[in-house]
Amino acid sequence: MRGKFITFEGIDGSGKSTQLRLLADDLRFRGFNVLTTHQPGGTPLGRRLREAFLETEENVAPMAELLLFAADRAQHVEFLIKPALAEGKIVLSDRYADATTAYQGAGRGFDAKTIKQVIQLATGGLKPDLTLFFDLPVSIGLQRTNKRDAMGELKNRMDKENSEFYDRVRQAYLEIIDKEPRRFRVIDAMLSVEEVHAKALEILTEYLKK
Amino acid sequence: MRGKFITFEGIDGSGKSTQLRLLADDLRFRGFNVLTTHQPGGTPLGRRLREAFLETEENVAPMAELLLFAADRAQHVEFLIKPALAEGKIVLSDRYADATTAYQGAGRGFDAKTIKQVIQLATGGLKPDLTLFFDLPVSIGLQRTNKRDAMGELKNRMDKENSEFYDRVRQAYLEIIDKEPRRFRVIDAMLSVEEVHAKALEILTEYLKK
Repeated sequence: MRGKFITFEGIDGSGKSTQLRLLADDLRFRGFNVLTTHQPGGTPLGRRLREAFLETEENVAPMAELLLFAADRAQHVEFLIKPALAEGKIVLSDRYADATTAYQGAGRGFDAKTIKQVIQLATGGLKPDLTLFFDLPVSIGLQRTNKRDAMGELKNRMDKENSEFYDRVRQAYLEIIDKEPRRFRVIDAMLSVEEVHAKALEILTEYLKK
Repeated sequence: MRGKFITFEGIDGSGKSTQLRLLADDLRFRGFNVLTTHQPGGTPLGRRLREAFLETEENVAPMAELLLFAADRAQHVEFLIKPALAEGKIVLSDRYADATTAYQGAGRGFDAKTIKQVIQLATGGLKPDLTLFFDLPVSIGLQRTNKRDAMGELKNRMDKENSEFYDRVRQAYLEIIDKEPRRFRVIDAMLSVEEVHAKALEILTEYLKK
C-alpha cells in the first residue's frame, strides 16, 4: 500500500520542526514506518547545495535561489519521498512546495505562473496528502526567531528578512489554504508546545484512521 | 553602447575552450574590453554548486541536475553577463543555453517543452548575439577526452558518457543550427589548433566590423 505524504508548513518561529519531531516519535511508537525530512537540505546533495547557498561570498540572484531550491526538491522527490511512499512509509516533511509559493512567490515577488512552473518541474506533480499549517502572528514568529539568534543559533541569510516580508509569506499561505481547504489543517501555534502537540496528534490520528 | 554576447559550443573535446582563450587574447590586444566566462561554474556561487554536484556521494536525479545548471545560469546572467553587456563589453562564454538543449535535452531525454521552460526561467530570454559551433565527429572528441583522462586531467561524472550519448548531443546541436542559422557559425574542429584559431578569428573580425 502506498504510504502517506504529510507536510509541515508555517512561517519561521511557528514551531513546526519541533512538532514534526514529536509526532514522528509518536507514530514510530505506534509501529508506523516513518521517514522524516526537511527542505531545503534533506539529501546529501541538498545539504551541499544549502551550504553553497548560505556560504557563498556574493549575493544570490532571486531566480538562482528559486532554481536552487527547486533542484534540491527534485532530488528529494526522486530519491527520498517517492521511494519511501512506494514502500508504504509515512513521510513527514518540514516544508515542501507550499513554502516555495509562500516564500519565493509572495515573499520575493515572483509571478504565480513562474512559481507554478518551477514547482511542477521540481515535483513532477507530487502533492502532499495532508498539510499541517502552524499559524502564528508574524510579530510572535519574529520574537521567537530573534530569541534564537540571541542564543547564537541559526543566524543566516534566511533570517535577515523583515516583518513585511513575513506578512506577505503568511498571507500567501492563507491563500493556498483557501484554495485547497481539504488538504490543510490549520493549528494555532500560539499555544504551548504541549498543547500544539496534542492538537496535531489528534488531527493525525483521525487522518490515519481513514 | 551595448556589448556583444558570443557563445562557444561543441561536444567535449572540440577545443572550444582553447579557442576561446586565444580569441580573448586577440580581442584584448586589439583594445576590446572582454569578459570571458564558462558554464557551469563561472560565478563564485556557480563554482560552489559545481563542486556540490561533482562531489556529492549520491546519484543526482536528472531533473535536479537540470535545475542546478539552471540556477548557475541564472546567477551568471544576472551578475556577470547582463552587467558586462550594459558596460559595452564583449562577453565570450564557454557554453550557454544551447548546451542545455543539447546535453540535457537530447542527451538525457528531457522533452523540448521542459527544456525550453527551464532555459527561459534561467536566462530571462537573454540570447547570444553570435554562437561559434566547433564541430567534430564524436569518435574524435572521445579520443581527445580519453587522452586527457590518461594524462590525469578532468576526470569526473561528466566524462563518463558513451559515444551514443555524444551522438545525440551533436545531433541536437546541428538541429539548433538548422533552426537559427543566422546566429551560428560552424567551424571545422578537426583542423589544427592554429587553423581553427585563424578561421574563428576571421569570423569574429568580420562580425565585429558590423
